Amino acid sequence: MPVYHAELLVYLRPDLLDPQGRAVKHALNTLGFHEVEDVRMGKAIRIRLQAENDSQARDRLKEMAEKLLTNPVIEDYRILSLEQEP
Amino acid sequence: MPVYHAELLVYLRPDLLDPQGRAVKHALNTLGFHEVEDVRMGKAIRIRLQAENDSQARDRLKEMAEKLLTNPVIEDYRILSLEQEP
Repeated sequence: MPVYHAELLVYLRPDLLDPQGRAVKHALNTLGFHEVEDVRMGKAIRIRLQAENDSQARDRLKEMAEKLLTNPVIEDYRILSLEQEP
Repeated sequence: MPVYHAELLVYLRPDLLDPQGRAVKHALNTLGFHEVEDVRMGKAIRIRLQAENDSQARDRLKEMAEKLLTNPVIEDYRILSLEQEP
């Protein structure tokens, strides 16, 4: 079965406060990076999986995101890339 | 001054064990996602900053990554995107 490499990004929904991002923004400003106006912290997830084809891989990643990788109430995610292993 | 939106991804170096990724892989397998072979967890960081131009923004992001956002001994990062606000 083909092997795929996927990358997912997960962030808090834009309307929610991100205390970790705010702390990083503050730390950057304090270190002299005064030009930084906003920071949002999220998760990057690389997954290697087997799938029959691109479409099946995408469906399964969606299921994983909804069941385990994200909290759909407070987080959004996107599949950044999905590539079949050569 | 122009405003830029950047996105950085930070992962443990590929030669290092990623216990969090391993735990997520295990949890996915247990939930029925037996096709998952490997998971690596990283950080996704969105930064809004002011800069004179693209090149300056990139230089400053590199400095931020090296000084605060990553631990260069154990982590790699890449600038996924950098766009000027319209």
